[in-house]
Amino acid sequence: MSTAAPRTPLADRSPAELASFVDEQRAAYAALTARGLSLDLTRGKPSPEQLDLAEALLHLPEGHLDRAGTDVRNYGGLQGLPELREMFADLLGVDPDQVVAGGNASLTMMHEVLVDHLLHGGLGSPRPWREEEKVTFICPVPGYDRHYTMLESYGIEMVTVPMREDGPDVEAVEALVKDDPSVKGMWIVPTYANPVGSVVTQEVAARLAAMPAAAPDFRLFWDNAYALHHLTEDEAKSADILSLASAAGNPHRPVVFASTSKITFAGAGVAFLAGSRETVQWYLSHLKFASIGPDKVNQLRHVQFFGSPDGVRQHMARHRAILAPKFAAVDAALTAELDGLGVAEWTRPRGGYFVSVDVPDGCASRVVQLAREAGIALTPAGASFPHGVDPRDRNIRLAPSFPSLAEVETAMAGVATCVALAAAEQLLADVG
Amino acid sequence: MSTAAPRTPLADRSPAELASFVDEQRAAYAALTARGLSLDLTRGKPSPEQLDLAEALLHLPEGHLDRAGTDVRNYGGLQGLPELREMFADLLGVDPDQVVAGGNASLTMMHEVLVDHLLHGGLGSPRPWREEEKVTFICPVPGYDRHYTMLESYGIEMVTVPMREDGPDVEAVEALVKDDPSVKGMWIVPTYANPVGSVVTQEVAARLAAMPAAAPDFRLFWDNAYALHHLTEDEAKSADILSLASAAGNPHRPVVFASTSKITFAGAGVAFLAGSRETVQWYLSHLKFASIGPDKVNQLRHVQFFGSPDGVRQHMARHRAILAPKFAAVDAALTAELDGLGVAEWTRPRGGYFVSVDVPDGCASRVVQLAREAGIALTPAGASFPHGVDPRDRNIRLAPSFPSLAEVETAMAGVATCVALAAAEQLLADVG
Repeated sequence: MSTAAPRTPLADRSPAELASFVDEQRAAYAALTARGLSLDLTRGKPSPEQLDLAEALLHLPEGHLDRAGTDVRNYGGLQGLPELREMFADLLGVDPDQVVAGGNASLTMMHEVLVDHLLHGGLGSPRPWREEEKVTFICPVPGYDRHYTMLESYGIEMVTVPMREDGPDVEAVEALVKDDPSVKGMWIVPTYANPVGSVVTQEVAARLAAMPAAAPDFRLFWDNAYALHHLTEDEAKSADILSLASAAGNPHRPVVFASTSKITFAGAGVAFLAGSRETVQWYLSHLKFASIGPDKVNQLRHVQFFGSPDGVRQHMARHRAILAPKFAAVDAALTAELDGLGVAEWTRPRGGYFVSVDVPDGCASRVVQLAREAGIALTPAGASFPHGVDPRDRNIRLAPSFPSLAEVETAMAGVATCVALAAAEQLLADVG
Repeated sequence: MSTAAPRTPLADRSPAELASFVDEQRAAYAALTARGLSLDLTRGKPSPEQLDLAEALLHLPEGHLDRAGTDVRNYGGLQGLPELREMFADLLGVDPDQVVAGGNASLTMMHEVLVDHLLHGGLGSPRPWREEEKVTFICPVPGYDRHYTMLESYGIEMVTVPMREDGPDVEAVEALVKDDPSVKGMWIVPTYANPVGSVVTQEVAARLAAMPAAAPDFRLFWDNAYALHHLTEDEAKSADILSLASAAGNPHRPVVFASTSKITFAGAGVAFLAGSRETVQWYLSHLKFASIGPDKVNQLRHVQFFGSPDGVRQHMARHRAILAPKFAAVDAALTAELDGLGVAEWTRPRGGYFVSVDVPDGCASRVVQLAREAGIALTPAGASFPHGVDPRDRNIRLAPSFPSLAEVETAMAGVATCVALAAAEQLLADVG
């Protein structure tokens, strides 16, 4: 904090005070643009330093046989290497036969599950989804853009519910699924959600698992991308959605996705799907027409690299040591510049890859534009909403993982200036 | 050849001679079963010795940057590593921007292309294929079982045409596509086809490329799985289907598939798709919703391992040195036992992974059963036909790549006995 006395919120200042504040911020912004920066806070990519943590992978595996003596170089093994499934079953809190270890992208597995429902129907489906007049998905917002674009590509309708600290607004969700059989699915990032960082509580998870649904084949697409990606010692434990759903009599409702994309290599990790045993068999019964088996060499590589579930946890602690200072720098920059001004609220996530900033309604696009013109690339405003449209134009997603700490500090001081300037200009226009 | 004098065909022998021949074969078969063999000629899998040729891959890549300095460990690069695309563009005779380097399975890319046509439609499609009343594919037979099961899983109709030495019966194909707009696609393995080993000639390829098709979005699924997999010095050159189709005004008709599954590791290679530039862009425009990029680490691994297109060719020569003696052993065993009897015809392929044997109509299932009971696993009779049904029950697919040379010799002597016995028993039953 650079100031001892609390600041006066901008909304409480006189027009003259506001005009003077705008002048200050314009000067700061001019100085910012004069620096000729070229910084990027757009995507949740691991940094080279994080990727270096797994560099030993490049010279593995030793040998080419799995535990059972199977040659991993050859065809086969559609469900994935048993020892890797065991390792991640432990981490995900499920049984190994409820897990499939796949290729390099959980996004691909989500897409396969969606397409299988469209073309074949899922467990309990009266017919393939493509034969339904309408298919609707519930999308907590703000959320992950690739979830929305995938649905959009198939003309699937999206209805939004607010994402809160304890997960999606579960009453709104319950009301949507109760009577409308077109509501076939829901996206949810349960742990350290993209971008708001919230964690679905046990209570919310239990309600999502048990709520009555008009569609007999309503699916929770449970994208647990950040299950192990803690930023503090206060580690969130993901709700055990498969057990909750099973206990509630809806065992096939959740399909869980995870991956090592942000554990080992973002482009060359291993993705996982988990569900009821029937869900796994359903998935494989379609996958077998498209694949003879995943890259088991890469799976053995991962088994040898980690050694055990604890090896994965220890590896994640090394990521945290790199990431936590960057997230602290985001908070410090925003606090230093904006605290008390009443023009921004932001998250202080306990895990995951993003900080979500809410600015005054109508200001987000302007902030992104100002930042871009100052050489700081931010995710386009609205990217965290279906169709790329934030109805209030107020949410900005920050991704501080990829740049260096020094770059995050520089970029975030600049972003804070852009927020202050955009908010103050808008207020001044309103009073002027 | 164990006999100097030509044998009398079984069909020309008297009932008594036939009965005596059957007795001999029954004795031979009894001796065979007494050996308690456990041998497998079912799948076209590379042998451990072949996989060992690429063992150096397990400790690559050196470094983690591609030629342009991009970190291959991170996300991105949906079309695949440019230097690997260049290498295989050279081998496939196309331009690098006509090539996509993907994951570990060309089967997966074929499935994606099929599903994209079903759900979105392809270039020139009046509507998505799923909205057509009927979709029909032409399937040259015998052919590859996974091609058929994929179509079957989507309820796509299959009509067969005979596969000949110069490729599919092109007149039959022309007649099928000319007037029926439901005929949307055709499978073809153009080089060393599975299982008959034939090579599509330049003339046949030109006709397939140019023939008038009632469907404006008729597609050749050109599965060039064995393009480089020569067994002799007389190396077949794959017809340049993309240039032929482009010259004929049907540039988007062929979609070419290939992979290193039988070059490096069957489970951990790299697959390729090639087509017109528009086809590549169409494919990527759908793929982007399901993937952020392929495993570029594995792609860099392959670039470093091969070094150049010639490196790939030299590597294939080492495969040939292992495989050619096994194929020679198949021919030798069948010749020794069956030559002149008039009960079997088999291929002597110049490349690929299979030998196709035709036995008397109605005998194939019996041969497979006899072999199984003697401990020799063969691909089920009919597997090379749609729905697993060979209407004449005469075709048997042999895959000699995986067992050792000694095992191939033992297994094939046994198979020849089974063919002789089954054919003779059937003849005897007919005359009896």
